[in-house]
Amino acid sequence: MVNGKSEIPYKGIGKHRPNGRKFGPLISSCADFPADGNKLVPTLKQALVDAGLKDGMTISTHHHFRNGDLIAIQIFDIAAALGVKDLVWFPSASFDCHAPLIKHLEDGTIHHIEGSMNGQLGRFTTAGKMKGVGVLRSHGGRYQAVQDGEVEIDIAVIAAPSADSFGNANGVDGPAACGLLGFALADSQYANKVIVVTDNLVPFPCVPWHIQGNYVDHVVQLEQVGIPEKIVSGTTAITKSPDRLFLAELTSKFCDQVGIIRDGFSFQAGAGGTALSIGIYFAEMLKAKGMKARFARGGSNKFLVEMLEDGIVEYILDGQTFDLEGVKSMRNNPNHVNTSPFTSYNYHGKGNFAQLLDVVILGATEVDVNFNANVVTHSDGALLHGIGGWQNCLFAKCTILPIPLFRDRIPVVREEVTTICGPGELIDVIVTERGIAINPLRTDLLDKVKDSGLPIRTIHELKEEAERICGVPQKQVFDDEIVAVVKWVDGTILDSIRKLRN
Amino acid sequence: MVNGKSEIPYKGIGKHRPNGRKFGPLISSCADFPADGNKLVPTLKQALVDAGLKDGMTISTHHHFRNGDLIAIQIFDIAAALGVKDLVWFPSASFDCHAPLIKHLEDGTIHHIEGSMNGQLGRFTTAGKMKGVGVLRSHGGRYQAVQDGEVEIDIAVIAAPSADSFGNANGVDGPAACGLLGFALADSQYANKVIVVTDNLVPFPCVPWHIQGNYVDHVVQLEQVGIPEKIVSGTTAITKSPDRLFLAELTSKFCDQVGIIRDGFSFQAGAGGTALSIGIYFAEMLKAKGMKARFARGGSNKFLVEMLEDGIVEYILDGQTFDLEGVKSMRNNPNHVNTSPFTSYNYHGKGNFAQLLDVVILGATEVDVNFNANVVTHSDGALLHGIGGWQNCLFAKCTILPIPLFRDRIPVVREEVTTICGPGELIDVIVTERGIAINPLRTDLLDKVKDSGLPIRTIHELKEEAERICGVPQKQVFDDEIVAVVKWVDGTILDSIRKLRN
Repeated sequence: MVNGKSEIPYKGIGKHRPNGRKFGPLISSCADFPADGNKLVPTLKQALVDAGLKDGMTISTHHHFRNGDLIAIQIFDIAAALGVKDLVWFPSASFDCHAPLIKHLEDGTIHHIEGSMNGQLGRFTTAGKMKGVGVLRSHGGRYQAVQDGEVEIDIAVIAAPSADSFGNANGVDGPAACGLLGFALADSQYANKVIVVTDNLVPFPCVPWHIQGNYVDHVVQLEQVGIPEKIVSGTTAITKSPDRLFLAELTSKFCDQVGIIRDGFSFQAGAGGTALSIGIYFAEMLKAKGMKARFARGGSNKFLVEMLEDGIVEYILDGQTFDLEGVKSMRNNPNHVNTSPFTSYNYHGKGNFAQLLDVVILGATEVDVNFNANVVTHSDGALLHGIGGWQNCLFAKCTILPIPLFRDRIPVVREEVTTICGPGELIDVIVTERGIAINPLRTDLLDKVKDSGLPIRTIHELKEEAERICGVPQKQVFDDEIVAVVKWVDGTILDSIRKLRN
Repeated sequence: MVNGKSEIPYKGIGKHRPNGRKFGPLISSCADFPADGNKLVPTLKQALVDAGLKDGMTISTHHHFRNGDLIAIQIFDIAAALGVKDLVWFPSASFDCHAPLIKHLEDGTIHHIEGSMNGQLGRFTTAGKMKGVGVLRSHGGRYQAVQDGEVEIDIAVIAAPSADSFGNANGVDGPAACGLLGFALADSQYANKVIVVTDNLVPFPCVPWHIQGNYVDHVVQLEQVGIPEKIVSGTTAITKSPDRLFLAELTSKFCDQVGIIRDGFSFQAGAGGTALSIGIYFAEMLKAKGMKARFARGGSNKFLVEMLEDGIVEYILDGQTFDLEGVKSMRNNPNHVNTSPFTSYNYHGKGNFAQLLDVVILGATEVDVNFNANVVTHSDGALLHGIGGWQNCLFAKCTILPIPLFRDRIPVVREEVTTICGPGELIDVIVTERGIAINPLRTDLLDKVKDSGLPIRTIHELKEEAERICGVPQKQVFDDEIVAVVKWVDGTILDSIRKLRN
């Protein structure tokens, strides 16, 4: 039971088979909407009131502006002023800019968060201060939960860099252009009421329409919906650290050695400086070999865009633009294609794009000797990050985690992870500055690196080396109280996060 | 009761409000699909068997190839060879090329058709020879019926000019490029099993994806899926008749007189030679005035494409390409946007595009003195045409029907239409070669044509003139047996078509 709802525990990869039918939103009628298609209302407050905002509702927002979001806080300020209580905030991700919401978690406006609890929100959660239990989902898991009716969104508020009064909206035009709006797709399709807010109202039709006005109830014009410069934040900047660049280079060499880098291959480098930097090495190798990649999945950045423009990547299938070069490319280049968690990540679909990737490169806060990995908590037990698309990407044909062996003298390769986010059987390779460990399940990869000269170690050797240098890490002491749960891509509960004892 | 299901009779425009929820298709799991995303099966027969083809199922196809469709007949030939009986064929439209299906209506493979029964299929139906009752829906009504769960599609077969083995598909690339695939959207979203057949298999990703592979179960490669030259057929050729060109010109003059032609206006000219020709007159007027239209809804043809390229139309929002110039433009011009019955026509959405049009110009087989109009039967009682988007377009701000006063000495303006497809209160203007009749409900339009010199008549005057020339038409004699029903855009039954007495 989580927040009063019964949940299914994790059963293993592909073991939980859903039954039942997708969620059916209420049927609308054109007769209930303005004949001229003009859905403008003067204020966000009015739109929320018209949408029936009341106690206990689930309110969704999206994170395309990342740390430059200006809307979520306004929503809950309005709700607080109206005296509305016990809302569930269902963002596609949260950032430092959302720390002011702690006020509304404390004053009872927000009951709990289902999405991600980053930074201060995470510390607040692990201190046991949130009224309800946090629920962490991957991007694909969020789509799955909405599609399957696990989460029923009462009101979705979609911040749009460009929109028309009918509600068609996109992320590529206007002063706050942030890229695509794919994270809000599920919300538009399945929420009971959908509000689009924009600071760039254009005459119908707003083309392209990333969000279709036919799903939208109300449109609000605001002075500013987001700060596009702030989409380059935290996890999306290329690393300058020589240590991390070494990891990136070693990872690329490994990929080359095992035959992943070939004409027509595909890759995704997730958020995180090391992972993003790997694109640069892939580009060099492809150029040298006269090969090209068929597609790369974004988070797109300027390096990926250069590869597209240089013709060494044929398509970028982009889930999220990580810089303004990515935004511009998506606007102008038809081979820079916007995708959504539905196409890329939803495990309860008829396949998804992530599984088609030849290789995915991801980060992790911890890995254990069974190759289980953690991305949400740190070894001190504090919840600090969201899952993003990380879990979904594990279904790629080869999953590689380039990680430092230790951070601030705390081992990253450990006996056991603090929180399991990814089951070890899906994680193929750990690349550290002191060697590469290959999952024993991947005998094919082990064969391919024989006599390669690559520094192949076992995961146990890596763990022991980390402990030799840093000492065996102390176990954190937790209370029994569960403050958050980690969902698996199929909606089952993979792990719990407990209150951290002071 | 129609085909054993209870139905709701028409209640008036906007009077029937749906309750309940949209149809929820079965939830899938990636675990049940190939890990490498390759859904190819060797034959259409194998795909149909894998999809569980059995007696009584509803099988859908789409009509983007119009008279060049090569798939529907193959499906039912396979079904007949397998001994499967009592199928419901649910096409988005039928054409002369589908006449060979009469064999399978006779041999019990097909129980009845829900879609359109054109030409020989219509004559077969009105002769009372179809086992079940035909159900005629508009394009928007088809989306509505699928979305609302009125029609549950067991197997959708989507013929695609280009596709990858994951099932992503489009209509703009490949040797059989036919334009967009919007009519198959509902089928992909809601059908239990979805089969994509293509004659142009490309490596993943097939971009753009008009149909998303995440909805697709099986992919089949065939030698040829359709004859793209045959999309120019019947209702989509520009008229050369001087009489019809006169109607087109008079209609344009009327639009100019009442102020419809202004900077930023929008229009749709439906299928039918006269309606399509009006674009040419609009273009001349806009050029002369130095104005441009904000958007035009297609059915696109070369004339509309020229307007787009000349900059006198900013966007084409296209539901269906009517010639190969339209296909090419949609492929290459980002302002030639593909739409679907969901965005354009679905009455059970939060508005739709059709209602935003300043003017729509449509055809009709008959109009009566109450401005009710007919598009499916002829005055001899034979069912010969589908509804297309015609009903949906009636919600435009001004609906004009340019029609000849009589055809083959049979009056088109009559006391009563043989079949009501559009309620008179939505039809604003009838333009004939002998005068223009304005619906008395549109006092605003009547005011605007005062002293205009336009040949304004009452609808009764037009009817009387027609009867003076042709004589009062004889009433057709029908049996009691209902052979088909005409649905309204909200799923209610607007009218019935009875068996024609020999």
